[in-house]
Amino acid sequence: MEPNKGLVSALFLFFLLHATMASPTPKPHIKPRSPPHHPCRHLTFYFHDIIFNGKNSKNATAAIVGSPPWGNRTILAGQSHFGNLVVFDDPITLDNNLHSAPVGRAQGFYIYDRKDIFTAWLGFSFVFNSTQHRGSINFAGADPLMNKTRDISVIGGTGDFFMTRGVATLETDAFEGEVYFRLRIDIKLYECW
Amino acid sequence: MEPNKGLVSALFLFFLLHATMASPTPKPHIKPRSPPHHPCRHLTFYFHDIIFNGKNSKNATAAIVGSPPWGNRTILAGQSHFGNLVVFDDPITLDNNLHSAPVGRAQGFYIYDRKDIFTAWLGFSFVFNSTQHRGSINFAGADPLMNKTRDISVIGGTGDFFMTRGVATLETDAFEGEVYFRLRIDIKLYECW
Amino acid sequence: MEPNKGLVSALFLFFLLHATMASPTPKPHIKPRSPPHHPCRHLTFYFHDIIFNGKNSKNATAAIVGSPPWGNRTILAGQSHFGNLVVFDDPITLDNNLHSAPVGRAQGFYIYDRKDIFTAWLGFSFVFNSTQHRGSINFAGADPLMNKTRDISVIGGTGDFFMTRGVATLETDAFEGEVYFRLRIDIKLYECW
Repeated sequence: MEPNKGLVSALFLFFLLHATMASPTPKPHIKPRSPPHHPCRHLTFYFHDIIFNGKNSKNATAAIVGSPPWGNRTILAGQSHFGNLVVFDDPITLDNNLHSAPVGRAQGFYIYDRKDIFTAWLGFSFVFNSTQHRGSINFAGADPLMNKTRDISVIGGTGDFFMTRGVATLETDAFEGEVYFRLRIDIKLYECW
Repeated sequence: MEPNKGLVSALFLFFLLHATMASPTPKPHIKPRSPPHHPCRHLTFYFHDIIFNGKNSKNATAAIVGSPPWGNRTILAGQSHFGNLVVFDDPITLDNNLHSAPVGRAQGFYIYDRKDIFTAWLGFSFVFNSTQHRGSINFAGADPLMNKTRDISVIGGTGDFFMTRGVATLETDAFEGEVYFRLRIDIKLYECW
Repeated sequence: MEPNKGLVSALFLFFLLHATMASPTPKPHIKPRSPPHHPCRHLTFYFHDIIFNGKNSKNATAAIVGSPPWGNRTILAGQSHFGNLVVFDDPITLDNNLHSAPVGRAQGFYIYDRKDIFTAWLGFSFVFNSTQHRGSINFAGADPLMNKTRDISVIGGTGDFFMTRGVATLETDAFEGEVYFRLRIDIKLYECW
């Protein structure tokens, strides 16, 4: 019965190899549920938002372009700025210094969406065009900005960030009156091509 | 030693075949095309939108914050509301009762984008912070709202909905004048981590 | 020839098991990094944007619905239109002729987001309802519109484009004053279901 022994050994090895090499997943879109997941790429930046207030047109990187019926476009409205739509083109820096050389621009909008507390909805991109990074990362999600940290989605990317997806954690790093704020963003990419 | 020879041949063929057929699938991003797909997670909710009309500031969950040149921000504009941008923070409920305990908030915006029929473009999040769900689901897409049902994309998620993707089917469940509407949303997630 | 019988059985079982258990990939979300990637679907269209300027209400497909404090909603603002939010419902054609039969509608918004150069952030959908295509493709991303070509993300889809993802390359194909422009869009889908 030597042949069967060969068969048994072959199958045993097959299972062993199969388990270590091939194992999962019948359906490639059912990702392994067990946390923690490890990002395939991890980047940290700061970006700086200076809202136009009628007097700072030289330095402003953002402007109110929509407001609720009870507001205007020079001062953020009452009721937690509910209804204010802000467009921005903010410098991205590697450290928390507004005056550091920007490595890219954060471009897009946020819209305050709650009357009783500060929350916003964000749609924006990081646009890079330097020797280090070229391409864009696109973001969308809810920002309950009174929380110390909050997560939004990385919904796509181009260039060096072709087809990427992930989660970005925002943290307010500085907040000065209603004109300047600085966000720290921790970008964890879980799909890298 | 014939059996071992058989074993060796089997393993050799196994490797050969594995390398060409199986191994680290050439294109893991080509998902099985054959419908129907089965969601890895399926959730149904209702959310309730009350637009501010100048008189209902206590109950309103939404406000017009942008309008076309021919409109204002207290009444939805003519020509199918084309150009009206509405921000919302709507309660999410498990049944179709506005007064049921909300399980989360639907936060974001819609923008009417057609002159001859009611259609809108949506960007919003479901934000959960309860014992049952924690995290957010992010949505984007076109809403031809005169259709009985219409599909938008789930473009990402965080927390319990980490990295998810899917399709959500919207259905107008109630519509009262131009102030209140209620949507039923059937969320089918096809990528679960 | 017993060994060969063992070999045949082993291979038979291997195929059987392989087909049911193994097929794809240890980590489906780590995509092969090596470019170039080949799209699983490739589509090219044109779309046509005619901004309302107070006089062309019959032909206009777009309207300014948000503006910075220094602007209005009938003329695009100074400083590279920074802060102008435009809603659109543009016809999609197969060739570059505005008067060709549209195959769908491009619906959504763009928002000029930079003071010193023309750039915009886009959120929109292609909505198809013809014999050829049924469903929608959803887009988001930064558009540095002075560049000859620029890439945005395909963040999802429905119907015929169920769950798709990809990259779309925009190119300004015509630009007439500040009222009409035509974009060529080259849609490369890299995730097809």
